[in-house]
Amino acid sequence: MNFTSDNAGPAHPSVLEAMGRANDGHVAGYGADALSGRVRDRIRDLFEAPEAAVELVATGTAANSLALATLCQPFQTVFCSPVAHIHEDECNAPEFYMGGGKLTLVPGDDVMTPDALRAAIEAEGTRGVHGAQRGPVSITQITERGNLYPLERIRQLCGVARDFDLPVHLDGARFANAAVALNASPAEMTWKAGVDVAVFGGTKNGLMGVEAVIFFDPEAHWEFELRRKRGGHLFSKFRYLAAQMDAYLEGDLWRRLATDANARAAEMVAGLDGVATLRNAPRGNMIFAELPRPVHTALRDAGAHYYVWEGDEHGTDPVTARLVCGWSTPPEDVARFVEVARAA
Amino acid sequence: MNFTSDNAGPAHPSVLEAMGRANDGHVAGYGADALSGRVRDRIRDLFEAPEAAVELVATGTAANSLALATLCQPFQTVFCSPVAHIHEDECNAPEFYMGGGKLTLVPGDDVMTPDALRAAIEAEGTRGVHGAQRGPVSITQITERGNLYPLERIRQLCGVARDFDLPVHLDGARFANAAVALNASPAEMTWKAGVDVAVFGGTKNGLMGVEAVIFFDPEAHWEFELRRKRGGHLFSKFRYLAAQMDAYLEGDLWRRLATDANARAAEMVAGLDGVATLRNAPRGNMIFAELPRPVHTALRDAGAHYYVWEGDEHGTDPVTARLVCGWSTPPEDVARFVEVARAA
Amino acid sequence: MNFTSDNAGPAHPSVLEAMGRANDGHVAGYGADALSGRVRDRIRDLFEAPEAAVELVATGTAANSLALATLCQPFQTVFCSPVAHIHEDECNAPEFYMGGGKLTLVPGDDVMTPDALRAAIEAEGTRGVHGAQRGPVSITQITERGNLYPLERIRQLCGVARDFDLPVHLDGARFANAAVALNASPAEMTWKAGVDVAVFGGTKNGLMGVEAVIFFDPEAHWEFELRRKRGGHLFSKFRYLAAQMDAYLEGDLWRRLATDANARAAEMVAGLDGVATLRNAPRGNMIFAELPRPVHTALRDAGAHYYVWEGDEHGTDPVTARLVCGWSTPPEDVARFVEVARAA
Amino acid sequence: MNFTSDNAGPAHPSVLEAMGRANDGHVAGYGADALSGRVRDRIRDLFEAPEAAVELVATGTAANSLALATLCQPFQTVFCSPVAHIHEDECNAPEFYMGGGKLTLVPGDDVMTPDALRAAIEAEGTRGVHGAQRGPVSITQITERGNLYPLERIRQLCGVARDFDLPVHLDGARFANAAVALNASPAEMTWKAGVDVAVFGGTKNGLMGVEAVIFFDPEAHWEFELRRKRGGHLFSKFRYLAAQMDAYLEGDLWRRLATDANARAAEMVAGLDGVATLRNAPRGNMIFAELPRPVHTALRDAGAHYYVWEGDEHGTDPVTARLVCGWSTPPEDVARFVEVARAA
Repeated sequence: MNFTSDNAGPAHPSVLEAMGRANDGHVAGYGADALSGRVRDRIRDLFEAPEAAVELVATGTAANSLALATLCQPFQTVFCSPVAHIHEDECNAPEFYMGGGKLTLVPGDDVMTPDALRAAIEAEGTRGVHGAQRGPVSITQITERGNLYPLERIRQLCGVARDFDLPVHLDGARFANAAVALNASPAEMTWKAGVDVAVFGGTKNGLMGVEAVIFFDPEAHWEFELRRKRGGHLFSKFRYLAAQMDAYLEGDLWRRLATDANARAAEMVAGLDGVATLRNAPRGNMIFAELPRPVHTALRDAGAHYYVWEGDEHGTDPVTARLVCGWSTPPEDVARFVEVARAA
Repeated sequence: MNFTSDNAGPAHPSVLEAMGRANDGHVAGYGADALSGRVRDRIRDLFEAPEAAVELVATGTAANSLALATLCQPFQTVFCSPVAHIHEDECNAPEFYMGGGKLTLVPGDDVMTPDALRAAIEAEGTRGVHGAQRGPVSITQITERGNLYPLERIRQLCGVARDFDLPVHLDGARFANAAVALNASPAEMTWKAGVDVAVFGGTKNGLMGVEAVIFFDPEAHWEFELRRKRGGHLFSKFRYLAAQMDAYLEGDLWRRLATDANARAAEMVAGLDGVATLRNAPRGNMIFAELPRPVHTALRDAGAHYYVWEGDEHGTDPVTARLVCGWSTPPEDVARFVEVARAA
Repeated sequence: MNFTSDNAGPAHPSVLEAMGRANDGHVAGYGADALSGRVRDRIRDLFEAPEAAVELVATGTAANSLALATLCQPFQTVFCSPVAHIHEDECNAPEFYMGGGKLTLVPGDDVMTPDALRAAIEAEGTRGVHGAQRGPVSITQITERGNLYPLERIRQLCGVARDFDLPVHLDGARFANAAVALNASPAEMTWKAGVDVAVFGGTKNGLMGVEAVIFFDPEAHWEFELRRKRGGHLFSKFRYLAAQMDAYLEGDLWRRLATDANARAAEMVAGLDGVATLRNAPRGNMIFAELPRPVHTALRDAGAHYYVWEGDEHGTDPVTARLVCGWSTPPEDVARFVEVARAA
Repeated sequence: MNFTSDNAGPAHPSVLEAMGRANDGHVAGYGADALSGRVRDRIRDLFEAPEAAVELVATGTAANSLALATLCQPFQTVFCSPVAHIHEDECNAPEFYMGGGKLTLVPGDDVMTPDALRAAIEAEGTRGVHGAQRGPVSITQITERGNLYPLERIRQLCGVARDFDLPVHLDGARFANAAVALNASPAEMTWKAGVDVAVFGGTKNGLMGVEAVIFFDPEAHWEFELRRKRGGHLFSKFRYLAAQMDAYLEGDLWRRLATDANARAAEMVAGLDGVATLRNAPRGNMIFAELPRPVHTALRDAGAHYYVWEGDEHGTDPVTARLVCGWSTPPEDVARFVEVARAA
């Protein structure tokens, strides 16, 4: 019963198979092989963006930091939520890649509101040369607290950004879970809503380690490529990234895996009804649930793994647990978890 | 007949198998899993360095840039050869990771001499606060021009560095080929010779993309880990890097593969005797050979792939070709190449 | 009637005279002249810190950014108040000098509380390699909102920092005004309270542009010098910085000028009693006062210059004005200002 | 007899007087005062460039590094001579300001040739995403070895840069000495020859510390201002920089002072004829002369100050001395120097 993270599970077997198929003969390196080219095209097709610049990298940190560095000058600041992954969990990677840029935390919680965003942007940029200059807006979909931006909300935030002529970045580490939850197409969730650069994450949803970065305005392509190289993120044996992404796209695997993950989370939400108090509105694959102490204790005793997000692991009060389901989470594990929780 | 690069070939089948075996169940991310721990231990064993700090990254650019950034302050300069990969082929990655540090090119060719190194170090650092401060020495073994530093030469260079209290970095993208060519142990080629940080490359020798960075003084460990994270090079699903390296170490695969690659190169050197003029002293897997124009034309017509390093692909003069053999280079390809060349 | 800023006024005549005296003959550059050496010694004397490393720079941005860069690794974060000058008014200079470091805003207002600081430090550094690492604490004395840290409060904040083994930086752009207001010695306000690095500002208090940076632990000296040089802040004709500081120290000019500035502010505070609502507790030279609209209008009509900090310059509601007095503010101007305000 | 450097001498009295005149009353900070505006206009007039963006900074390091950072992306490289000040004497300041950019040393000596420049540019940028990308060309006029680029040579170098669509930066620390030596107007030596950004140095020619940076394409203005601010080089009490430059422009003081300095150097060159062997072709104010040992010894005994550029201060062989004259070098000192040298 492992609900610690979507990076704790394995890769989907078809991913390994695709890598095996790619593991044959000599091909050009650095993404110049035929498979890599085909995969970029498939992503353009998926996003209905035939002109888009598409690149693969192996980690989400790289994907987001490189995208932001390409959008943001070192004297600017990125607008994001106070719990944005780029702020909390990257050991200053965005600041490093931006060359000393800044993040401005938009007051509120994980789901930014258009009003708060507008106020934050207005507050920056009132100091002329003295203040940080306004830079891109960054949205995480699904958020770091497991909540979902409805399409309308993304459109509104992009509208605010557009009012100030600022680009919008979408951190899509859990892009697939969001698209499934919203029943939205990748295009609807990105450029049709006003997003300029999207990260289409694969690592948390069945790949070993591949994220696609999609610039809907292809002008930034070359700069992104240069930044990727000097960040050490251009793989020589690129085909193994491409093969993973190829498998991900094949038969909409990305969507099927996210559907499974979301389903497991929904089963858990249903099962915990009356037992735990939800701290988020989970429609994706991540649940923040306040567990009464006896429930927590019983789950631990039964071997359940998850992070205690708030509260004391070994105290007496309730704890807030982060429960993450993946495509590989066995339905039996969810059932068992619920059973133990309900029994406690 | 593909001799373009050691990154053009596939991964060894056992690498994929090891990744397949690792692809099971839930494990801790970010290198905290048992396999990753075991692999780090195995590398320490291989290098006879039980206290060493060992970390894996996925690209050589990352390995070298992170190692140098950990050794080198932004107001310092790295001493390297004028054709060092860190100078010529990284789109300023070392400078980026060092936060604006510099490279000082030691006059000469790819194989640095102790005298030239000493003179270069002496020349820097005579300007007090005004000049770049002396930083690490970086050696590439096998060099970018396919030559080999004998152990004694490495010891001499490390001795010069030690005279100035400077650390030594070894770029070991082709570490295995060198160790085989020298019949030296990893320890002999590194810390026993005075090297402080070594990169033990796997990508060019049968892995998909894994390089180990070994700090023989473990004090730098935590800083390296932080720099790796903020560079976006800490993989969440770390087990797939560890599995590759595990396969690499198993039964000395790294040594067996490099032995094969070197053998192919030796066959080619022997076969080209009297046909081409060698521009380097190849004892590893990389040959720089001056090909008479008719030989070059015949080889191209026969479908041979390689880089023209100097000269005009479509001219009339001889060209210098870079010919790289890998573990997966078929002996028949070498034989065929030689045959075509000799016939021309 | 100019109350816009302490950088709007002239330099004290004795400063210019000292520069004139220094403007004679050939001397060594870059701070190696006798005058520069003597001035550094005088600052050590003033701070009762015979071992301290002392350096001069020409701007406060440089002083604070270089001090922080010397204290803070690029993967760390600086703890400061949400209105810290280093956060709001430096166009990302600290982030630039730190090589991509971060600032963590301690919740609260301009005067940090020990509890809030402790909570902020505790909250950082709970994410291992993923989060920004804990770095220095930065205190502004007098704060950007014109408030004063009592010595006891500085000691408490330094105590919190010490509990986490973090260094403390004091932004002393208005150091003199604070020392006068507290009737404290420079030593009491800095190292005796636990401060590791202090900026002793002169620019806002009668110099043309000189700030001293004092590291009480001299070990950082050489690194600071290198960072100053590569930041472009090492003046070749250093004597003109030294001469300014020499004049500043002569006969405690710094203290006499700050006494005058504070006195003007006190007169204004007294005069505005019953007319304006103070938004800070001014004991230095900076007043934030809520002015009823008629008062604001009357003052503007009378030619008073000051910044509207909150509210609408041309609206109907009251505005909050920032009123800064300097050593050169004529008492008559304060009297006139008060008179106009009271009449309105 | 001080010939160590043009930064060892004092400021011209009229500079101090201008600062004194500016030292009156309250004015806007940060260059928004009337005097600062007027000075920027005067520089535009002097350069016959009514649209140019003009800014003042206090050090040459800042002027050149900020100019290059505005012209050069962090993944690019600057082409300069192997003895360029930006390479040898800035403790990595350009690399720092460029965010990790690089310098490519054009083979040859201090005076770049068009052919060598073209070859260097061609050699870079042949490696696609892997190599440093081509960036600006940087010319130092007068060079660091005291030589002069004729106008035609500047035009040729700019022509080469233009062929590759690269901008040209002119490091004009000794701009005035060059303009006098060439009898050229500032416009002729810069934009009329193809220069995009010029530094018009004052510090080495009679100011305390002011350099003007002139972008002939004003589009870069705002970015330069932001970079200046975040570099800590925006002075709050800007009028004191402006006043210095104002004096410098008044009655062509800059030209008169450089004329004096060059005249002293010419006297020395003439006087050393037959005694010393010139190592450069001095037409400005800086002489590199090989002094026979007895001459060197006699000069030292007579109290002459200068740098030994090559050779051993205390050996037996001849030494190469760098002899720098300034506007304030007394003709008697030159005469005395020559007399001692000739007597030896």
